[in-house]
Amino acid sequence: MTLIVQKYGGTSVASAEHIRNIARRIAESKDKGNEVVVVVSAMGDTTDDLIKFAHQITDHPSERELDVLLSTGEIVSSTLLAMALKDIGYESISLSGAQAGIMTDDSFSQARIVNVDGKRVKKEMEAGKIVIVAGFQGVTDRMDITTLGRGGSDTTAVALAAALGASVCERYTDVDGIYTADPRIVPEARKLTEICYEEMLEMATYGAKMIHPRAVELGEIFHVPILVASSFTNSPGTLIHGGVSMELRNRVRGIAHDFDVAKITVVGVPDRPGIAAAIFQPLAVSGISVDTIVQNASINNITDLTFTISRSQLQKAMAITENVAKQIGAASCSSDAKLGKVSIIGTGMQNAPGYAAQMFTTLFEQNINIHMISTSEIRITCIIEESRVRDAVRALHRAFKLETGE
Amino acid sequence: MTLIVQKYGGTSVASAEHIRNIARRIAESKDKGNEVVVVVSAMGDTTDDLIKFAHQITDHPSERELDVLLSTGEIVSSTLLAMALKDIGYESISLSGAQAGIMTDDSFSQARIVNVDGKRVKKEMEAGKIVIVAGFQGVTDRMDITTLGRGGSDTTAVALAAALGASVCERYTDVDGIYTADPRIVPEARKLTEICYEEMLEMATYGAKMIHPRAVELGEIFHVPILVASSFTNSPGTLIHGGVSMELRNRVRGIAHDFDVAKITVVGVPDRPGIAAAIFQPLAVSGISVDTIVQNASINNITDLTFTISRSQLQKAMAITENVAKQIGAASCSSDAKLGKVSIIGTGMQNAPGYAAQMFTTLFEQNINIHMISTSEIRITCIIEESRVRDAVRALHRAFKLETGE
Repeated sequence: MTLIVQKYGGTSVASAEHIRNIARRIAESKDKGNEVVVVVSAMGDTTDDLIKFAHQITDHPSERELDVLLSTGEIVSSTLLAMALKDIGYESISLSGAQAGIMTDDSFSQARIVNVDGKRVKKEMEAGKIVIVAGFQGVTDRMDITTLGRGGSDTTAVALAAALGASVCERYTDVDGIYTADPRIVPEARKLTEICYEEMLEMATYGAKMIHPRAVELGEIFHVPILVASSFTNSPGTLIHGGVSMELRNRVRGIAHDFDVAKITVVGVPDRPGIAAAIFQPLAVSGISVDTIVQNASINNITDLTFTISRSQLQKAMAITENVAKQIGAASCSSDAKLGKVSIIGTGMQNAPGYAAQMFTTLFEQNINIHMISTSEIRITCIIEESRVRDAVRALHRAFKLETGE
Repeated sequence: MTLIVQKYGGTSVASAEHIRNIARRIAESKDKGNEVVVVVSAMGDTTDDLIKFAHQITDHPSERELDVLLSTGEIVSSTLLAMALKDIGYESISLSGAQAGIMTDDSFSQARIVNVDGKRVKKEMEAGKIVIVAGFQGVTDRMDITTLGRGGSDTTAVALAAALGASVCERYTDVDGIYTADPRIVPEARKLTEICYEEMLEMATYGAKMIHPRAVELGEIFHVPILVASSFTNSPGTLIHGGVSMELRNRVRGIAHDFDVAKITVVGVPDRPGIAAAIFQPLAVSGISVDTIVQNASINNITDLTFTISRSQLQKAMAITENVAKQIGAASCSSDAKLGKVSIIGTGMQNAPGYAAQMFTTLFEQNINIHMISTSEIRITCIIEESRVRDAVRALHRAFKLETGE
């Protein structure tokens, strides 16, 4: 019998009707002879509503208490789904993260899974039950409830799939797969039937919101194939896995983008050891997450240093950076809040020259100015004006012929 | 340091403002030098809302799943209260029933507490924290969540008080104590400063809704005094305990009543062993709870048998009883749905004659017909027309001079 872990997101369980619908889908999968373990998110806006409630009580809710509070959202949806399955004649049982053995560290609100003890889940499966696990949550070795932060339910699902030796983790949401670019921007964008972990990671990190990078990483480490598909249709979805055939690797697989980029430039920085640490350490301490960093070649031991952040953090980051700039004797600081980024992603790009050149040429032909460039093994990213992001995505999609089949 | 367990009901935690208010009351108690452990119910109508939700999914929700679902209500209020306490500078931690060591049997929806393991609660108290425990719930030795049924949070509070060796269990609600009769019926009803467990049990079982009998029983067994008071005022409340002074015992302490009584009479029952079992066993199996039972003296081995039930169960009970009546060769069945009951309650009544006579005389003077009579050590109950219950309560309150002090 094939063991499948299915994960349903908040929109898939938003109402009683949605929940009954999901129950039928799960039952169908069971009827095909699969063993099914299900992970669910909280219904619709439950999590946001609970957070609002906490803020009615206090401006600074205790993280420990907030985690317990939020964990109830997934418990509610898991029990309702188990009831719906029993109602149509399928033995089922809901388990909280703690009961399902999702052991985490004690970093409340952003806990990391340290171990999954699948004993209880396996026992219930052996008793013939469809097990429904509350996502997004775990428990410390002191038996305190934690939540996993962003992408938490995805992570629960992949971790469970790994621990149980599932053959696939199916992630259902209102999006029916991974596209070569955002279909709202590029109408001719094509759904990929498969993509490898690294490419998906770059797509996810660089703007594609379909699945959280944590879950993809975990899938890669534990060799769990992840199917991204819609819970509202029967369209086949996209399989994220490691075994993408070699001949598919040497090409651009997708275009990712992000409208929310701001940059800060520190001009006239004395180029000596410790300067980068002096600038980025205070930002990290303040919880500001720095994305791309570019340092120009030094002239007369003086250099410029530019980095990007999300727009909401610009003001705070600028204040910190101006302070540091004075201390290290830099000439000045400047910022630009209206930037975006566009990336081409594909395994093996660095071994096959010409992709970067093609990207830069395409942007040039569109008269789009490139502010910064950063690259990885399988990605080339350009920081451009926010107002030109849509044009850039469309042009690159055409240039790399992504509308035509794999 | 004195250890106090406080329990706050649903109306006391109905909104963010209510919760902040309760937090201040708890803080005051702590400031007076007490150690405080708090048990909370779910906010306002949360439990009813969750039950409605389950019924949107299925007409027959699994009891196991329903218990997990309902348990989230108390978890939400416990976390919010812990946040509110921290917000005003008091270290606090919420614990679920399971975390607080409330161990139960596995009778879902009406579990009984089998043991309280106070280790975790004590540890948090030693760390200087005010512990907030989610009421109404526990956990089986298989780590399955259970709920305790009606009066569950009261029971949690008294059980915790017993396990921790608390000096008192304070139960706060929107009622400020136990009255000699319902003040809505008898305006001159007087609040009792103290009452003994047995009297309270009879008051609670016979119509006074202030506290669930289970909690009172538990208090009696483990010698935990229970203070019933309002969370909205500072009025002193009523202390339920075992040490009520002897001289107070030989008098009527209160009048209880119930508007919801129906009776069934089986006429012409052959009086032979096993007849009572034949009638009441099928009712018990169907979950119908029978209250007063009266069997007339047998004439020529034929007797009449009358029993009372709550009105909502009359139809079902009548169908079952008619069926049994045929089988055992009884002559006929009849029912009356519009009855009520009135009780006088006071320890030692049976040793001091005249109370029963005074009660019957008072009802006769009001021209109130008595359908049935039942008595216990400390209670005399008359079943009367529902329409005369108010008159009966008022007249008895006057006759026994309950408006004058203790």
